[in-house]
Amino acid sequence: MNSEFDIIKKYFTFAAARDDVLIAAGDDCASVSVPADKQLLITTDTLIAGVHFPEKASPEDIAYKAVMVNLSDLAAMGATPAWLTLAISLPQVDETWLQNFSATLGELLKRFNVSLIGGDTTKGTLSITMQAMGLCDKDKIMRRDQAKAGDQIYITGTPGDAAIGLHALLNNIDDPALQPCITKLNRPEARVAFAQQLVSFSDCAIDISDGLVADLGHIINASGCAAQVHLSAIPLSSASRYFFDKYNKAVIDWSMLLTRGDDYELCFTVNKDKTSGVNELACQYDLKVTCIGEITEGHELNFLNDDGELVSFTDTGFKHF
Amino acid sequence: MNSEFDIIKKYFTFAAARDDVLIAAGDDCASVSVPADKQLLITTDTLIAGVHFPEKASPEDIAYKAVMVNLSDLAAMGATPAWLTLAISLPQVDETWLQNFSATLGELLKRFNVSLIGGDTTKGTLSITMQAMGLCDKDKIMRRDQAKAGDQIYITGTPGDAAIGLHALLNNIDDPALQPCITKLNRPEARVAFAQQLVSFSDCAIDISDGLVADLGHIINASGCAAQVHLSAIPLSSASRYFFDKYNKAVIDWSMLLTRGDDYELCFTVNKDKTSGVNELACQYDLKVTCIGEITEGHELNFLNDDGELVSFTDTGFKHF
Repeated sequence: MNSEFDIIKKYFTFAAARDDVLIAAGDDCASVSVPADKQLLITTDTLIAGVHFPEKASPEDIAYKAVMVNLSDLAAMGATPAWLTLAISLPQVDETWLQNFSATLGELLKRFNVSLIGGDTTKGTLSITMQAMGLCDKDKIMRRDQAKAGDQIYITGTPGDAAIGLHALLNNIDDPALQPCITKLNRPEARVAFAQQLVSFSDCAIDISDGLVADLGHIINASGCAAQVHLSAIPLSSASRYFFDKYNKAVIDWSMLLTRGDDYELCFTVNKDKTSGVNELACQYDLKVTCIGEITEGHELNFLNDDGELVSFTDTGFKHF
Repeated sequence: MNSEFDIIKKYFTFAAARDDVLIAAGDDCASVSVPADKQLLITTDTLIAGVHFPEKASPEDIAYKAVMVNLSDLAAMGATPAWLTLAISLPQVDETWLQNFSATLGELLKRFNVSLIGGDTTKGTLSITMQAMGLCDKDKIMRRDQAKAGDQIYITGTPGDAAIGLHALLNNIDDPALQPCITKLNRPEARVAFAQQLVSFSDCAIDISDGLVADLGHIINASGCAAQVHLSAIPLSSASRYFFDKYNKAVIDWSMLLTRGDDYELCFTVNKDKTSGVNELACQYDLKVTCIGEITEGHELNFLNDDGELVSFTDTGFKHF
């Protein structure tokens, strides 16, 4: 086991699941067929050891997160995932590591009906760059520049859980009650199935991987409008409430919840006529979906506390540098 | 200049060149339109500092090579390049470096009519993963599994120049006569335009980035046939002849020329009826194209010297690990 070809054959070759893959790994390029009535959506994300996941993260968690981070971008536009490429740098060939990474990757490919169609395996610092490709009907897509004054603002899930999970890990807080937050950090769930239906009710979505403050900021900047968010409307998870009660004198640290990022949940806007449809959809997918504010005329992003006072955030999102 | 968004805006945003790009960078995904009569070709390659290019390589050379390595894979299948994504890890934000990298990238995008449609910018060891996407007519593609007994084997260019360039750099041989080899190493030229026409004459091609021995080996393995190559037919560049004359007692080191890799030339097979078409095409593109042997029945890859004796290679290709 010392050649790239052996590694690819043993760990990165999965049963072909899709008949739109004309050539999978094994030639200079992969080849796929895109139906005439679809548009192709493409996203790429890199995860680096020690930056995007702990140096000692398990191969299963790394594979899980790498896939979900990319699928979350497809979900943010309402796309159906189709194909994936994997460029992986490994410091050495560790067969156990590769086997565990491969097992999780294979499970997720199967679960989402995605084919791994190519990649590159190199020697270097542990790093994973995936590119996910998906398909959308030509006229049905959610974009971050389509919010309109009067739209309601929704989020899925409970923001900030991953930030609490990371805080617990970095500060060696060994408290089983915080495990759900660590799971959200290591095993985020991209809202893929929900998002594919959401396109019938929303024209505008983003994933809040940089934190709600930064990502809702992207929506209003791209759409040329303002937003007003009520902190009291933002749902907290039980683990999150527990964390602030026990470790922060019962004070909620909104900055921690809304600016640290690594939440692979969606923020989206909905015309008032369609909010009941969104609620039904949330029930159908058993997903927590909450209206947290509204899009207005203007250009400011305002967060209001219980007393209707403006809250400002000095950090506005995950800093990549 | 400390945010990923600033870097993308300043250095990785280029004028939109293609009208098939529906959404470029700036949303969760890019979106493109694939014509109904085309198939989509996808390839990805990673270049890591100190592994695939010298730590001190110029940003211009790094950008050049990263693009060409990916376009060479598209060329190997006869595809027309269309879109590119760039996942780049940078140890720090060096504006001069980024400006020079960006300038070369921009020139190549323009030259090949390719749009940069997305990417990811992260902090880490210097590393570049590009994914190139291209288009082919649905029935016109060159694959490595389509060689047939009786076909003639051709290569473009002169193999091994990059290996000599690397040897010169690693051994601090400061000889201006070897500069063409260093240029081949740092600034390879993918055979994109030639390959797009070659699909009319060939069903089977590969790029010889792992070296001719390994890559012709891939063709015969995938195609289920044998190949016979005459070393005397393989063309050497002037710089390569000079190198062996001056530094190797006039002995040609075939292993160096055919197994070290990093040649972004093509090896392809042609039915005898179509060889005159290939020669005309080579003239048209002013490209050195040479017949070096033939595909036969069987499964062996044989290299023959001037006396018709078998030559064997212990190293068979670039080792990724």
